[in-house]
Amino acid sequence: MTDDRPGEFELIKQFFAPLAKDPGSLGLTDDAAVLSPRSGQDLVLTKDVLAAGIHFFADDAPEAIAAKALRVNLSDLAAKGAKARGYLLGLALPSDWTTDWLARFCNGLAADQTAYDVQLLGGDTIRSGNGLQVSITAIGEVASGTAVRRSGAKPGDVVFVSGQIGDAAAGLKARLDAKFVKANDLTVAEEKHILARYLLPRPRVRLAACIAEFASAALDVSDGLFADAAHMAKASGVELVLDPSLIPLSAALHHLQIKSPADFASCLNGGDDYEILAAVPAEAAAAFEASARKAECPVTEIGTVREGRGEVCLTAGGTSMDSVLETGFRHF
Amino acid sequence: MTDDRPGEFELIKQFFAPLAKDPGSLGLTDDAAVLSPRSGQDLVLTKDVLAAGIHFFADDAPEAIAAKALRVNLSDLAAKGAKARGYLLGLALPSDWTTDWLARFCNGLAADQTAYDVQLLGGDTIRSGNGLQVSITAIGEVASGTAVRRSGAKPGDVVFVSGQIGDAAAGLKARLDAKFVKANDLTVAEEKHILARYLLPRPRVRLAACIAEFASAALDVSDGLFADAAHMAKASGVELVLDPSLIPLSAALHHLQIKSPADFASCLNGGDDYEILAAVPAEAAAAFEASARKAECPVTEIGTVREGRGEVCLTAGGTSMDSVLETGFRHF
Repeated sequence: MTDDRPGEFELIKQFFAPLAKDPGSLGLTDDAAVLSPRSGQDLVLTKDVLAAGIHFFADDAPEAIAAKALRVNLSDLAAKGAKARGYLLGLALPSDWTTDWLARFCNGLAADQTAYDVQLLGGDTIRSGNGLQVSITAIGEVASGTAVRRSGAKPGDVVFVSGQIGDAAAGLKARLDAKFVKANDLTVAEEKHILARYLLPRPRVRLAACIAEFASAALDVSDGLFADAAHMAKASGVELVLDPSLIPLSAALHHLQIKSPADFASCLNGGDDYEILAAVPAEAAAAFEASARKAECPVTEIGTVREGRGEVCLTAGGTSMDSVLETGFRHF
Repeated sequence: MTDDRPGEFELIKQFFAPLAKDPGSLGLTDDAAVLSPRSGQDLVLTKDVLAAGIHFFADDAPEAIAAKALRVNLSDLAAKGAKARGYLLGLALPSDWTTDWLARFCNGLAADQTAYDVQLLGGDTIRSGNGLQVSITAIGEVASGTAVRRSGAKPGDVVFVSGQIGDAAAGLKARLDAKFVKANDLTVAEEKHILARYLLPRPRVRLAACIAEFASAALDVSDGLFADAAHMAKASGVELVLDPSLIPLSAALHHLQIKSPADFASCLNGGDDYEILAAVPAEAAAAFEASARKAECPVTEIGTVREGRGEVCLTAGGTSMDSVLETGFRHF
């Protein structure tokens, strides 16, 4: 059998070079990228590896796989208050890859590069021993000394979360169980909404500047809201007191809460939300909220920070929510 | 079956955090690393993905797999004239990974971190759908504007290569064919040498400063000497005229040259050498050589650059060497 698919160098020229307009990429003609850091800026670096069958379905649209791999990294940068500058792409292609698949994958990257103002800087493509794997290292910039960490939450801070929680986990349930949508009386629009939220994270890049300006601690919710709240509490050496009844929910999740409380609880802490959880000093809370609204990324107050040693305490209005405090989704 | 292997967070604490002493790593307690670029420095970024069965054998010593994955990236940085500053590690572990294996893998990283003065900055660990895969992004520093590219070779430049060529490819042959060593009358020491050169690249990090100071173009030899020379010729828009009889060879390769000219030719362009190929202005050639010797990384003059359009021309003393001009090793 002859293999008329392009080799590595043709592949770079045909598919990847058009994505690399930043001069630092050297047009992908070199082994490395060269970045001149802007004066007064720190660089924020993050890396996420996604594998078929674990983080996405192998038969997902190639555009969506590309977008998800890039966006989970952009979400990490936004939660640190950083503006994305570029990324390196490590792509391990399964033996049955096609040029059509790769063209669509690169179209997905191209669309997101425009949407999020970020450029391909370099990378590596190999044959995967087996399934598709995508490894992205994203590089962002933030004014020197202002990168927001998990560890800065202080007693008295107000805890905010962006967007709505639980939709992606519900989307995964719907994807895995054909009866899920009907069993929970979800409308067609609600089904579409949760499936889309699982397939494609919407990194809160517009919130980055507000986070950098106001937050004392922040992270993106990928493991589960309470699991990630516990990460912040532990790193900061404080206790996060959250009121689950304040957690912003979509119509689909409201439905689920009534119909299947157990499913609802597991979705609330299911992960893959890619919303931002932030602790903000009480005196800056109103300004943060206004600034987020202006950035078209509304945030909701869901709790406070008090002295403690890494705990998360849920204080709903009477309802016990202990079951949702179980460990978040294990990506590994 | 219960799985008493540590989860992601225990794993970070137990195995990876001890490798992350650079303050920019934030102790691996965050989703990202934060680097404050030093004034007057550019950052050089490179990424290589290695997969079991393609770039190494799954049953190679874990220490060696770790070292190889890190070193191929350090080699890229050195060829750009950059000093390594840190790296991000993406690790996809097969389902049957053991804590013993991982401890040895991390020991390999720790030893190389000391040897090459580089620190773990961040990363991601996932379950691999299948085999082991290691993706490393390395970050280096070089004085602003001095990163050396493939594309700077000028007519009149002298072409140098570091170390010796062909040993790693011979080592791979020996690894794959039990009769190879005997058939070519290699001594035990020669066998050991070529096997070691395949297993473990020795990135020419000590040459980085000489490259930055003197070279007009450079790259590391990973695809094959002539294939990589062609990359430089093409990127620079020149012709590289190389004399194969000048290529520095180990005793093992001298043996091979006599015994199996075809094997010898394929090893010469076999790749995985991780030596540095550099073009240096003629007037700086002597200083470059002296500086490399002082850095204990001897280089050998193997040719010159002349006007051209991306060709490599081999001019041996009478012997035709055309067969070695075939395409280099395809990692992809």
